Amino acid sequence: MQENDFDLDKFGINEGISETIVTTTNGWTLNAAPMGIIRKKDKTFIRLFKGSTTYENVVSGKLLVANITSDPELFALSTFTDLDDPSFENVSFDGITISTLKEAQSWVVFECVNTKLTSEAFVAELVPIRAHINKCRIKAPNRALFGVIEACIHATRYHLTGDEKYVKLIKAYGDLVDKCGGDSEKEAMKIIYEYL
Amino acid sequence: MQENDFDLDKFGINEGISETIVTTTNGWTLNAAPMGIIRKKDKTFIRLFKGSTTYENVVSGKLLVANITSDPELFALSTFTDLDDPSFENVSFDGITISTLKEAQSWVVFECVNTKLTSEAFVAELVPIRAHINKCRIKAPNRALFGVIEACIHATRYHLTGDEKYVKLIKAYGDLVDKCGGDSEKEAMKIIYEYL
Repeated sequence: MQENDFDLDKFGINEGISETIVTTTNGWTLNAAPMGIIRKKDKTFIRLFKGSTTYENVVSGKLLVANITSDPELFALSTFTDLDDPSFENVSFDGITISTLKEAQSWVVFECVNTKLTSEAFVAELVPIRAHINKCRIKAPNRALFGVIEACIHATRYHLTGDEKYVKLIKAYGDLVDKCGGDSEKEAMKIIYEYL
Repeated sequence: MQENDFDLDKFGINEGISETIVTTTNGWTLNAAPMGIIRKKDKTFIRLFKGSTTYENVVSGKLLVANITSDPELFALSTFTDLDDPSFENVSFDGITISTLKEAQSWVVFECVNTKLTSEAFVAELVPIRAHINKCRIKAPNRALFGVIEACIHATRYHLTGDEKYVKLIKAYGDLVDKCGGDSEKEAMKIIYEYL
């Protein structure tokens, strides 16, 4: 289903902060990384901290794809590694070619407007220019999926600061994943520990 | 879509612990409460602690409906209050009438077999006997939904023990909901604070 009315709710981006995997490119290399898409009423934003590949690509290209997925392994892999090329799918429209995640349930292409560049971060308002639903999967909330997402966030902070308190937090979420997770969440946790 | 092949994945119950809202009845009064459905490979289980209405109804009727939803207000309301009758929908099949949640994305009716009753809990293997998809909604993971579910769990523990450490934890999750949630997660958090 190709949609141009951009009711973001329908594509899985609701009010608050949606945890998505953002795909970008510098023109030759594809990149994927977990990023929050902030939605307040009818406005949508992103805040990207300096130093990441996503930051570099978005600052120069002003374009990004927010991929919606509940796959814990994709969150862990895209936090720590470069996803391999077969994970991506190219889509062309209006003379633009973008790369989405093949396994995403849906994706939304955003153009960045009203951008602000501070010493620490890039902030932009996001205008949807294309959106698509690949498949819809019903999934009951699982505390382990959130455990994986929290652990990825703390692992990123640990890499930035070296503060051991983050390792403790990651291990607590690891226990939650052991208790509540299926194979996919447990596999994701293994990836996190491997890259810690 | 009415299904009888019971591929639980399709109805949103995956491996690990799925956070669902279980609906039961004692024959005249309907009940709804958040409960984890445990799935390990091809077996599905539930563990119900003594003292809840769900426990009473399932021990006597050996039947329950697991409703799949990501609606934070439904999790909060069903933790603390009796949902009103219009929240439910009656479904009849094979001479049985069950009550589901109207707003659920899907539901699965389970029969309890190989039941064990200990001094503290009722444990049963769950055999799916009917399942249905109402609607499929794509939704990016939101850390605030997880915050609401964790806060509900801690609020239940607080009511059981009176231990103030749970209030601290609930407030920490309240901060996460303020930061990441939309209206629905914030409304759910209000309900939790109201009943604390």
